[in-house]
Amino acid sequence: MADAWLTSLITKTPQEGFELAITLSRRGVKYTQPDVSKLKELRPTYAESADSLTAASHVVAVNFQTVAAANNYWR
Amino acid sequence: MADAWLTSLITKTPQEGFELAITLSRRGVKYTQPDVSKLKELRPTYAESADSLTAASHVVAVNFQTVAAANNYWR
Amino acid sequence: MADAWLTSLITKTPQEGFELAITLSRRGVKYTQPDVSKLKELRPTYAESADSLTAASHVVAVNFQTVAAANNYWR
Amino acid sequence: MADAWLTSLITKTPQEGFELAITLSRRGVKYTQPDVSKLKELRPTYAESADSLTAASHVVAVNFQTVAAANNYWR
Amino acid sequence: MADAWLTSLITKTPQEGFELAITLSRRGVKYTQPDVSKLKELRPTYAESADSLTAASHVVAVNFQTVAAANNYWR
Amino acid sequence: MADAWLTSLITKTPQEGFELAITLSRRGVKYTQPDVSKLKELRPTYAESADSLTAASHVVAVNFQTVAAANNYWR
Repeated sequence: MADAWLTSLITKTPQEGFELAITLSRRGVKYTQPDVSKLKELRPTYAESADSLTAASHVVAVNFQTVAAANNYWR
Repeated sequence: MADAWLTSLITKTPQEGFELAITLSRRGVKYTQPDVSKLKELRPTYAESADSLTAASHVVAVNFQTVAAANNYWR
Repeated sequence: MADAWLTSLITKTPQEGFELAITLSRRGVKYTQPDVSKLKELRPTYAESADSLTAASHVVAVNFQTVAAANNYWR
Repeated sequence: MADAWLTSLITKTPQEGFELAITLSRRGVKYTQPDVSKLKELRPTYAESADSLTAASHVVAVNFQTVAAANNYWR
Repeated sequence: MADAWLTSLITKTPQEGFELAITLSRRGVKYTQPDVSKLKELRPTYAESADSLTAASHVVAVNFQTVAAANNYWR
Repeated sequence: MADAWLTSLITKTPQEGFELAITLSRRGVKYTQPDVSKLKELRPTYAESADSLTAASHVVAVNFQTVAAANNYWR
């Protein structure tokens, strides 16, 4: 990808770290399906499936592990 | 999200840490589907599916790893 | 939850640690579906599905990572 | 469980560690479904499904992480 | 594989690290299915399935953990 | 298993480490289904399913975490 979207894993607060984990999760999708209109098309279906939402939350949890470790858990 | 819901990963007890892991897992869902009424609608179905419950417990386990490490395992 | 069910991640033996990991996995389910009668109802189906059992063992494995690290691997 | 099946995570070789990871994965199943005859009944179906075998290998991989860390990677 | 495609886990920036995680995820697929024409054939189906995209993002997240740790989180 | 197939997690390069992760993933399958002819039979189906390939890559990613940590990330 041409744009610089990830210059650091360091965030000021845990919440910002969680939100960065969400960005990482979405980027993981976008590298596979870069067509944004296609992604918008898919959204309603999976945002209304409990299992899809759990799977999305799982990916965020894995990325949050990385961000939290990078920030030494904001201790 | 506008509200500050995650200011620290530090908890007093392991059990509070586990409950924070549950909060993180639910927030992971809510960032994808912010419509609370929709989430309530989905709840009965997945709360009565054994596989959905196992998947939910899996996400909690991943988030609990993060919280437990942050708290140096409450040693 | 009102009761105190998790006061420490430290166990005397690896086996007790593994059993704590099972407790954590079950609690992860119970926070989502607190109705015990419902859980008992679901049990026969998933206890007889190989894939559900593998998924349950997966969650235990993730929680066991946490408990084992907490105990410095009982070295 | 009454029997002592896990007294240490330390193994002499990585291969023994991998085999311990397999034991842990199977025990994770057995705590949920302790009826051995039922487990034998389920075996043919999932041992002939590629996706079930991949899922089984996934659980072994997670448990192997734990055992390998416990053994300081046999360095 | 004959070609040398992975000589280091060290990257200059987190974003390059994320992109390396994507390469690792794709290589994990390619070792199992080395027939590139077959992979291209499969692409449209899974790039239009929300759940497949989430699963792909999950693998990237796991590989990103490895790359981020290798780079000491670019701190 | 009778043969010694895993004597060390140390590899000379990251790529060899990745290939060891693939070996570990396959062995995880083989301990559950040791019948090689059966495994060959299953291969075409899952090697042509995008989701199965992603799941296989996921297991490789988990095992690669272990191998990379064992090698101190080849730093």
